[in-house]
Order: sequence, then C-alpha cells, then structure tokens
Amino acid sequence: MLPLHLQPQSHVPLYIQLRDQLRSLVHAGDLRPGDRIPASRELATMLGVHRTTVANAYAELESEGLIQGHVGRGTYIKGNGNGLKLTPPPPPVLNGSEGLRWELLFADERGEEALSRLTASAPENALSFVMARPAEEFFPVEELQICVNTVLRREATDVLRLGPSDGYGPLKEALLEHLRADGIPAKDENLLITDGCQQSLDLISKAFVRPGDSVILENPTYPGAVAIFHGARARCLSVPMQTRPEPGTALGIDLEALEATLAANRVKLILLTPDFHNPTGTSMPLASRRRVLELAARHQVPVVEDHIYARLHARDERVPSLKQLDRANLVIHIDSFAKVAFPGLRVGWIVAPATAIERLRIVKQTTDLHTDQLAQATLAEFLRRGLFSKHVARMRKVYASRLLALDEGLRKHMPEGTCWTRPDGGMCLWLELPPGFDASELLIHAKERGVLFAPGRYFYVQNPLPNTLRLGYAGLDEKQIARGVTTLADVLRVEMRKRQRGVRRAERSRVALV
Amino acid sequence: MLPLHLQPQSHVPLYIQLRDQLRSLVHAGDLRPGDRIPASRELATMLGVHRTTVANAYAELESEGLIQGHVGRGTYIKGNGNGLKLTPPPPPVLNGSEGLRWELLFADERGEEALSRLTASAPENALSFVMARPAEEFFPVEELQICVNTVLRREATDVLRLGPSDGYGPLKEALLEHLRADGIPAKDENLLITDGCQQSLDLISKAFVRPGDSVILENPTYPGAVAIFHGARARCLSVPMQTRPEPGTALGIDLEALEATLAANRVKLILLTPDFHNPTGTSMPLASRRRVLELAARHQVPVVEDHIYARLHARDERVPSLKQLDRANLVIHIDSFAKVAFPGLRVGWIVAPATAIERLRIVKQTTDLHTDQLAQATLAEFLRRGLFSKHVARMRKVYASRLLALDEGLRKHMPEGTCWTRPDGGMCLWLELPPGFDASELLIHAKERGVLFAPGRYFYVQNPLPNTLRLGYAGLDEKQIARGVTTLADVLRVEMRKRQRGVRRAERSRVALV
Repeated sequence: MLPLHLQPQSHVPLYIQLRDQLRSLVHAGDLRPGDRIPASRELATMLGVHRTTVANAYAELESEGLIQGHVGRGTYIKGNGNGLKLTPPPPPVLNGSEGLRWELLFADERGEEALSRLTASAPENALSFVMARPAEEFFPVEELQICVNTVLRREATDVLRLGPSDGYGPLKEALLEHLRADGIPAKDENLLITDGCQQSLDLISKAFVRPGDSVILENPTYPGAVAIFHGARARCLSVPMQTRPEPGTALGIDLEALEATLAANRVKLILLTPDFHNPTGTSMPLASRRRVLELAARHQVPVVEDHIYARLHARDERVPSLKQLDRANLVIHIDSFAKVAFPGLRVGWIVAPATAIERLRIVKQTTDLHTDQLAQATLAEFLRRGLFSKHVARMRKVYASRLLALDEGLRKHMPEGTCWTRPDGGMCLWLELPPGFDASELLIHAKERGVLFAPGRYFYVQNPLPNTLRLGYAGLDEKQIARGVTTLADVLRVEMRKRQRGVRRAERSRVALV
Repeated sequence: MLPLHLQPQSHVPLYIQLRDQLRSLVHAGDLRPGDRIPASRELATMLGVHRTTVANAYAELESEGLIQGHVGRGTYIKGNGNGLKLTPPPPPVLNGSEGLRWELLFADERGEEALSRLTASAPENALSFVMARPAEEFFPVEELQICVNTVLRREATDVLRLGPSDGYGPLKEALLEHLRADGIPAKDENLLITDGCQQSLDLISKAFVRPGDSVILENPTYPGAVAIFHGARARCLSVPMQTRPEPGTALGIDLEALEATLAANRVKLILLTPDFHNPTGTSMPLASRRRVLELAARHQVPVVEDHIYARLHARDERVPSLKQLDRANLVIHIDSFAKVAFPGLRVGWIVAPATAIERLRIVKQTTDLHTDQLAQATLAEFLRRGLFSKHVARMRKVYASRLLALDEGLRKHMPEGTCWTRPDGGMCLWLELPPGFDASELLIHAKERGVLFAPGRYFYVQNPLPNTLRLGYAGLDEKQIARGVTTLADVLRVEMRKRQRGVRRAERSRVALV
C-alpha cells in the first residue's frame, strides 16, 4: 500500500496532490524504475476519489517521463524524470496545444461541426450551455434588411469601393455619438473600426507586444485572448479571479495579486473584462476599477478593457467603464456588436488615445486593409435609426429573465457542495462542483442525457480547477434552462452517489489490507 | 516569304519559337532596319497559328526594340535591339520606414484622406493612375441588392449567427464549383475563406513564418506583402523581376536569380504573382511556371501564388496557374473578389493542401474568428446565379479596352527613351523613364497638371529604380486615360527639355572655364 494522503478540503486540487505525492515517492527512492503502480481505476477506489483524478495525475507524470503505461500490462515507474531533462516546474495540465484546446471550445458552437471531441455523440437536440452567444430567435432581421437596402440605394459606390483602414466614415460618426451618450467623449482620431473583439486583441498584440514581453491576464479568462498572446510568444502572467464574495476582497481580479505581479515584472499590458467577465460572470465594483487605474498609472501600463458584455446589464444601474474613469489616458477600450446583436456580422471597435489608434490603424491596414463595408454601413444605419439601442434594451430584459431562471433552477436543484457566481448581466455563469469532481468527466455523463456545458479548465491560463464549469445561458429560453439545470443536477447527484459507494468500498478494502 | 519553321510539338511555346527565329533573322542580317514584316493577323494565317501567338512574339520583339508598329502603316524592323542597354541598378534610395511608405500609397486611394503626402494639393478632379482598382461605374449594385435580399429572406439566422472559421458553407460550395471550372479540383478541406488577399498573406505569415525565417519576394512587389513579412521580422530576400523581354530570359521572376537564392538560403516560402504581376503587369510564361515548381519541389519550399488579377486576362487564352500545375502539393493559392468585383466587401480565399488549411484555419480563428457572413452569403448567391462569371467577362472587356487605350496613348505620346511593359491583363502597367529621371520628382509636376501615379520606388523590397512608375489604369475610362497620358508625356518632355538646357548650360560653363 502506497503512503498517499489526499486532503479533499485543501484548495490544491486532488489530482495535483496525488501527482506531487507520487513524484516525491519517486524522488525519495520509495518508488523505483520498474516498480508497478496500481491501475487508475484501482487506485481511485483505494483512495476514494474519482477515477479521472487519478487519470489526470498519471497523465501529468507520464508527460514528465516519470511513469509509463503499457497496454494490458499496467503502469510502471520509468525514471526520476531527470533523464528526460524536463524543466523543473511540471508541464501544464492541459491536453494538447493552446490552439487545439481553444479550437475544441469553438468547434462546438458550429452546428455543422458535430464531431468535435467535446460534443461528439451528443444528441442532435441537446441543450447547449457551451457558448456565450446571443438568442437567435430575437435577431432583428427585418430591421436589418431595411438598413441594407437603404444603404445600397443611397451609398452603394462608397460601400463597395476600397475604404479607409480606420473605418467607414458614417459608422464612425454614428458610433462616436453612441459613445458620447455612454459617457465616453471620443473623437474621430480615438476610434478604430475592427472585425470584432478577437481582431481588436490581435491588432493590439501586433502593435504593442513583442516576443518575450509580459502581459497580465485574468485567470480564468477568455481562451481567444490566451491563444493570441501565446501566438505572439508573450509571457502570460495570470492573476486569479475572485469569484466568491469574501470578507476584505472584492469580486473580479485579485487586486493584491495584481499589485504584486506589477511590482515583480515589467508588464506590457493588462487585459481585463470588468463587466460580466467571461467565463466567471463577475463584475468589478467601482472601487476596484479605480484601484486598477491607480496601479496602471503608477506602473505606466496600458489596460485593455473588454467591454463586449457590458451593455447587457440585468439591473438598471451600470458601474462606469474603465474608459469612463480613465484620467491618465491608459485605457484601450474594445467592444463589438457581436454579443448584443449579430455575431455573424464581424464589426467591432477600439477606443484609445490618438497615438495608440494611429499605430493600430497601420497594423489594421497591414492585417486586412479594412473591415467589410457592407456590414459597417448597415450597422451605421442600424445605429442611426435607433434600432441598436432599442434592440439592446429588449435583449437586456430577455437575458435578465434567463439569468433569473438559471439561478432559480440551480438553487432548487443543485446538491449541497456546489456553488456558483451571481452575475448582474452578461451571458454566462460560473459553477464549482464539489472538490475532487472533474467537470470534463461530468460532461461525458451530461452529454448522454442531452445537456452540454463548457468545462472550466479550457479557460485557465494556468492552475486550472477541474471542478469548475461555465454555463452560457443567453441562447436558451427559460424552459430549456430549467430542463437543462434539472438534468445537470441529476447527473451530478448520480456521480456523487457513485463516489460515495466507491469511498465505502475503499474503506472496506483498506480494512482488508491492514 | 520568311524562313520560319514552328514546331507545335516542342515544349517551347510557339510565340517564343517565333520570337527567337525572327530575332535570329534580324541578327543574321536577313531582316534589316526599315524592312516591313507582315501584320500579326497575316503572319498567323501564313503560319497556321493563332493570332495571339504572333502578337505575343511581336510584343516581345517590340519591347526589345527590334521592331516597331505604326498604326495604319504596319510593323517594321527598327534595329538590332542592342542600342537600348538597360540601366544598371542604382543604389537604394528609400524614404522612411516600410510601414510609412506603404501607408502613403494606400492613403491616396481613400478620397477622404486628401492630405497624404503623395497627393496633397492635387486638384480635386485629378486623374489618378495611383491605384490598381476596379472601375466603380460598373459595380453591379442592383444584382448585389437582389442577392442580399434573397439571402436575408432565406437564411438570415445562419448568416447572423457566429459561423465556422473556415468559411460560410454555401460560399465554400459555390467557390469549389467555380474552382473546378477553373481547373482546380479542390475539396472542402482545401479551401479557407478569408477577408481578402491581404489577410490571406497575414495568416500565411502567422502560420508558417517565424522571426528570422527567410522568404523570397519578387522585386518590385506588392507593398502590402513586404509590410506583412517585415512585421513578422522575416528576412525578405528579393529576386529581380524581368520586365523587358531579353534573349534567353523570360518575363516574370528572374529564374536564375531565384535558383541561386534558393541554393544559398534556407527559404521558408516564395511569394509570386505569375499573372499580371503587381506592379509590373508582367506574366510568367508556362515554361517559367514549370521551372519554378521544379525548383520549389527540389528545395521543398512552398510557393504562395497570388492569383488576384489572373481572371482579368485581356486575351482569350490563359496560362495555367501554378496551382493547376502543382503536382507536388506545394502551392498555396490566394485569390479574392476585390479586384474583379467589389473591394469594399472583404472576402477572399486560400486553396492549399489540407494540412496547411487546417493550420491556417486555427490561425484564422485566433485572428478574427471568421469572415463577415453577410458578405460571404451575398457573394455565394452572386456566384450561384452566375453573376460573378458574367461580371468578370464584362470587366475583362472593359479593362482590355482601357489597357489598349493606355498602350496606344503611350506609343503616340511618350518621348524616346521611355519604355513600358505590355501586360496581357490585370490593372497596371510599369513604365521606365529615361535613366536619371526620378518618378517622384515627376509626380510633383504631374500633380500640378492634375495627373497622379504611383512612383515605382514604393514597390521595391530593395534597390529601387527611381525612374520607374506604375500606372493603374482600370479605374479610368479611355478618354481619361488618353488625357492623362498626354499630360504625363507633356510633363516629361518639359522635364527633359529642362534637363537638356541644364546640360547645355553646363557644357557652356565648362567651355567658359577651360
């Protein structure tokens, strides 16, 4: 019997505890090359943990070169890992490359790509909480059609010819007016039109980040951002998100950790989503926003504010955006029509100091000349006619009601030991399963019952918590949400009972071994 | 009767055989200055070949200075071609950074940015040969409007929701059919939709080029490509373009220099525009294309083929694209709707081996998720209804007529010592002023007279020839072209006289000093 002692109450995930203890045993010589270790199922039963926990630990040790599995013969100690010359810190727990992990997530969103690993074999009518996406049944198609036709009748030649890299004039005008109404008095030279927030982040990375530069990301965060900065060979420094209210700390990015990271590193930029953060759904209170701007000003580090969800506030009042509070001209504010209106039309924007916009404009030109002008002109008309504000107001109500349904469902059905965030808007909610549970494992069972969600591990820059998951609720109606949550709670309960039985069995066998 | 013997079975194209035999007759003294040779139509009938074959041979001999056509009087032997003697490449004279140079160029295209250095103070109604851009008066606006409305009535939800990164399904299908008709039997996994050729190049650079990698570019080339590879910190190796037909060399990239560059460097990729090259307007003959593919296969270097102008062939026959000839699966073929239809709609595509497309698709996802779907769906409908082919056919005639007008104007008005390329299509023509003249200098005077063009120096990767310039003719009608060329020739004559006076004055003062 191996001297393994796991502590389910610890903040350290069980599989990390297991991995570290096994590694220590090898380094201490208690386990030596050629020694056989129990199969994952067997060890899971012995320890009273989920099988995935053991499998995760084994996967990491294997990639470190410490152990090796042989089909049909079991798992053996291979060496102490020194032979392979691995870097001392263990490799990330994530499977595959960054690109691939991210790929998996988005692959699901497309109905036509049914064979992604994440959702393979899911029933066709599965309820999907995977994406944070708008409700399609409310797409204002007729209004859009009127706008397209108006634009093609009035200004077809302007629309169809090659345009300016900073954006189509009429859209810039309409947006500046909209921004002023939002408390951001930007001028033409402060505004760049892009193909959406993904491109905005890419342009910002190209314009300001060099290989080896450090950027600060929230942990967890939007995987698309991680993919960009990894692609640019930047050092991604992650600062934890506070997702549960605790005395003395605010929701959102951990301010003490942020301060320490800024003090210890020369940071090129900070990326934050202060409103209805993806994936956690949390929002930063006003005091935290002011504090972030103070820190940024002290260290002279620009802050990129992802404002993509901010218009979708469930309550009437809104906390001012970082850009509204920006006295030191350090905020690069990115936003888009994708979450509030039509993701298929790729139009977003960046508001920033004129010097930053000038640099970004040249990068934009090199990247794709300019954003599609049929979409730009159509959205300009959509804004000018007040249709955008009208649509946002409508969708806020729709999503608020869906969020309420989700929270109520979770309260009613989720077993003890589960907790979740209480977003004030946006499109997603973050849920923590009881410690030791793995959301990816749960997804396998949920999928069989026709419910899908995004396991939390895909959103982490580092130190993923396997027991977290994201529920994107905006694309499902109240009934679907209620049904989905009931199923999810059922599946979790079944898994909890299984584990309880496993623990009892392990206790019995431990007795037998003694 | 001329002693000409063409061999249709030979791998040497007929027009090359004809050109070489005629040249030999001149060099042997069988044909002498002042001798009249048959009109192309007449000789074609005599030899039993297509008229274009003869026209091709004549065009080459004419640009070599061996023969000269006189409208209404026939074609005559002019000299033995030795008199022209190309200028040796002068040292580099680049102003500003790469980004800025490029910036200047595009700044002109936008009517709204009147204050670029290049066109500052130009009269409002100036005739601009600056850009290689489609004729706006032929934009098929009504047809486009029908397509948009059809799409929004039929598939609005599909269009407006977030889509697949590799492209909107119906557009991919329609394009694959179009490609098959073009002799490229690609499958779905070989095709990626992008925001146009600029983005395609950016994605290719991101996917395959690391800082310090070497890429081969034509010199001169499209400045947007230089900007991308400079931005990626690649080593840009430039290979000269052959713009005048000379014995033993073909038009297009200098094959010997290409071979030497490949032998001396570890090259990551080669970027070529085999058809109606921007900026020179030259096209690579079939034999050169085969040779490039041989070299690429021997060195295992992918070739990026920019196919953006290829559909705009003035003659009926087309030389096969590199992709059509690609047996070793080394060609990444990029194309777009921008030059043949609407530049304001940002939609292009890449055809490449499936493994390359898979990598590019992930990069595309990280870059901007996907291309705007309203534009994609609209263009799919435009293709499906046959409107694209119809439009291309129409524009080919329009541009061929404009090209003819330009060439005729130049022949009629340009002073001795000026020479230019004879494009078989595309949107631009390359002109060399007499040695010692600087096109940027000439632009200042031309601008005062209301004519603009792009000085050649902006297109060079290195060793720019200041006496070169590009005339983008597609956006101007025949009358405008005639007027523009007359003015240009006038301005040049004035400058030549000024210089002549300067020389005489210098001689007089030398005499006085002696």
